[in-house]
Amino acid sequence: MSLSRTLAIDTVKKIGDKVKVSSWVATRRDHGKLVFVDLLDRSGIVQAVGGEELSLLKPQYVVEIVGEVRNRPVAMINKKIPTGEIEIAVEKVKIVSKAEEMPFDMGAEELNLELPTLFDFRSLTLRHPKVKKIFEVQAAVMEGFRRAAQKLGCIEIFVPTVSISSTEGGAEVFSVNYYGHKAFMNQSPQLYKQMLVPTFERVFTISHAYRAEPSVTTRHLSESVQLDCEFAFVDFETLLDYLEEAGKETLKYVEKNCKEILAGFGMPKLKINEKVPRLTMREAQKIIFKRTGVDHTQEKDLGSEDEREICRWALEEKQSDLVTITHYPTAKRAFYTLPDPKDSEYSLSYDLLFRGMEILSGSQRVSDYQDLVKIIKARKMNPEDFEMYLQAFKYGMPPEGGFSFGLERVTMQILGLKNIREASLFPRDMERVDVRLSTLNEK
Amino acid sequence: MSLSRTLAIDTVKKIGDKVKVSSWVATRRDHGKLVFVDLLDRSGIVQAVGGEELSLLKPQYVVEIVGEVRNRPVAMINKKIPTGEIEIAVEKVKIVSKAEEMPFDMGAEELNLELPTLFDFRSLTLRHPKVKKIFEVQAAVMEGFRRAAQKLGCIEIFVPTVSISSTEGGAEVFSVNYYGHKAFMNQSPQLYKQMLVPTFERVFTISHAYRAEPSVTTRHLSESVQLDCEFAFVDFETLLDYLEEAGKETLKYVEKNCKEILAGFGMPKLKINEKVPRLTMREAQKIIFKRTGVDHTQEKDLGSEDEREICRWALEEKQSDLVTITHYPTAKRAFYTLPDPKDSEYSLSYDLLFRGMEILSGSQRVSDYQDLVKIIKARKMNPEDFEMYLQAFKYGMPPEGGFSFGLERVTMQILGLKNIREASLFPRDMERVDVRLSTLNEK
Repeated sequence: MSLSRTLAIDTVKKIGDKVKVSSWVATRRDHGKLVFVDLLDRSGIVQAVGGEELSLLKPQYVVEIVGEVRNRPVAMINKKIPTGEIEIAVEKVKIVSKAEEMPFDMGAEELNLELPTLFDFRSLTLRHPKVKKIFEVQAAVMEGFRRAAQKLGCIEIFVPTVSISSTEGGAEVFSVNYYGHKAFMNQSPQLYKQMLVPTFERVFTISHAYRAEPSVTTRHLSESVQLDCEFAFVDFETLLDYLEEAGKETLKYVEKNCKEILAGFGMPKLKINEKVPRLTMREAQKIIFKRTGVDHTQEKDLGSEDEREICRWALEEKQSDLVTITHYPTAKRAFYTLPDPKDSEYSLSYDLLFRGMEILSGSQRVSDYQDLVKIIKARKMNPEDFEMYLQAFKYGMPPEGGFSFGLERVTMQILGLKNIREASLFPRDMERVDVRLSTLNEK
Repeated sequence: MSLSRTLAIDTVKKIGDKVKVSSWVATRRDHGKLVFVDLLDRSGIVQAVGGEELSLLKPQYVVEIVGEVRNRPVAMINKKIPTGEIEIAVEKVKIVSKAEEMPFDMGAEELNLELPTLFDFRSLTLRHPKVKKIFEVQAAVMEGFRRAAQKLGCIEIFVPTVSISSTEGGAEVFSVNYYGHKAFMNQSPQLYKQMLVPTFERVFTISHAYRAEPSVTTRHLSESVQLDCEFAFVDFETLLDYLEEAGKETLKYVEKNCKEILAGFGMPKLKINEKVPRLTMREAQKIIFKRTGVDHTQEKDLGSEDEREICRWALEEKQSDLVTITHYPTAKRAFYTLPDPKDSEYSLSYDLLFRGMEILSGSQRVSDYQDLVKIIKARKMNPEDFEMYLQAFKYGMPPEGGFSFGLERVTMQILGLKNIREASLFPRDMERVDVRLSTLNEK
């Protein structure tokens, strides 16, 4: 076989030619002496037709097939796929790699599995065309974010994930044995991106974040990917402009580049206007009270149902899939969040909500060294644990602020997935690290 | 001050205008009643001149300065900087944030510090213009790699860093307390990118890699950033073409976008030809023997001095900064490396050397399930520890291979840095995680 490889998608340009395709068998259908196989490669699907030489093939076998590209009989044309007007008349079949019997039907349009099965067989289920598309969208989210960050003047930085003290205090951190010392996996790149503000003024970073939350929810992962920006010399209004810009640009990039996938997941067109509606948390609670009669106006945070309700409001009243909520109570936010100078009970913080869920969070930061030391002490943390971080403030720090997206959150929301685990290639939680932790035979 | 901010670089367009600049004080020079300050922001440097209102300013103070942009007296023109023909005649000074006394001279062109001091004051030393430039180059390495990978048809994936078994066997792994279970920080994204081959055929990923090597060298870090590609349906020659393409494109992108920085670090123009010289390890050893009289032809690997010598050969004989070395002994490479079918003592592996050091490594992989299980057992590892990885091979895996760059290594080599720590914002090693581990008061 000295023919070079033709991708599935390119076969349509070669009607009448002999081609070689290298692919995975998606499905096989036997019709008497005629056998049809759908062949899947990175470009898409193409149908091959032949005789008994195809009857040995099973789903997920890797094959090299040589044959002639010809037009399908009119009755067999499939308008749904780009190669639906042609087929390959098989001359030669080579099995490159065999596959075990499928544990479930990989050939159906939807892979309707319970989550445990979806992840017990993750190396296999990631091959299903619909599952795969989730991660095509994820790659587009990343590219869209990167372009938005660069447009805002940010330079990319690479920060560590192992530290000696935990990022934001609290107990929900994973500890590491670091050459005999106790170290921690960072809960976020937050402190490091702030330290780079005096160097570059505007930075972005893509980083893993580790949260040892002892609970299982549909919207938290123990290891996730965060997309972060941080800006020097900004005031609160400018920060709001920037975060909304980043949010809008990222989502628009995905819609533009993944139009068909979003349609395939049944998602409506994005509703994003020039102006994103902005509300303080207290204003949002009042609106929710008025709309639902449920009084959460004394609560210190928005609950999941509050987030969904205020997004319904934004959609109905402002025709917007996005809404920015500001001024969360200072006590509910991380120590580096700047209290509002006009009312220190509330902070210059914000969340960006998208179709019912927070996808981005951030704030104006405390940039004064003395204030920061005071706050760290008031929160019962030890300034000595923040030596390198505080150094940045000791030597001249301008007013600054920033924000952070959760990559899996954005992916989940833009595709309407029910569980954030579906938006992670290999999700980590309390119960699973590839294998179920309960099945481990530990020494 | 309701003027909006002007960046240092943009002052030259505003001669005769009143401007406001927001910046860090780089240096202050007092000449009798006249005081000069160099103001540094993300765009560069601009000089301000005034009277005693400037004499309070010290290095690293953050200031807002209002004044008129005017031409400098001819004798004062500095051709070395883009704003060297103008200065700001100061009218108003506002100190935004003070800085402590500098522990060393931050105003000199070179920051000549011993490494421990460079890292004890990392939040400060990263602001020095020459140190900062290292990370501008690093951002360009990343961008260049990403473009090269996309050009090769790879899609970006995001893989986990915490696993239940160690990636490549061996003891040099950091262990994590994962909800009471013993987990490990991945030594590389290797196994995960391979698992994605059946999904996307061609993938790239940017990931942290963790190596608990109990030694301190000038070219290893305990936490580093890896740039990885992996390709389905490739043979060894094609892999060599791809890796050389990725190497060449990445380096060329950096040279094109960081020309002045490379010159500032005294680096010569890149010597990269259409064809990168290729040698097997045994051929390289013979050449080294001939050139130096030192006989390493029986050694099982190239040592650091061997790498430098074969790079001198490539430069002198082939006018190339790059050389590809192939066919390292199978026993010296990771378990997933495919032995050469013609002589299984050697493997279908490769390193790309650049100016005296390996910057990229990879191989054709073992893609047969049964072979892989045998090899894992032969290396005294347990196939059960690789359950999810082996699943990918159980269900149909084509011939495949790939490679991996070390981000800090490439940065180090392209700038001629002496120690890899200089190419990491916050380097982690046996002795330091921001602070020196020996100084910790552990409970």
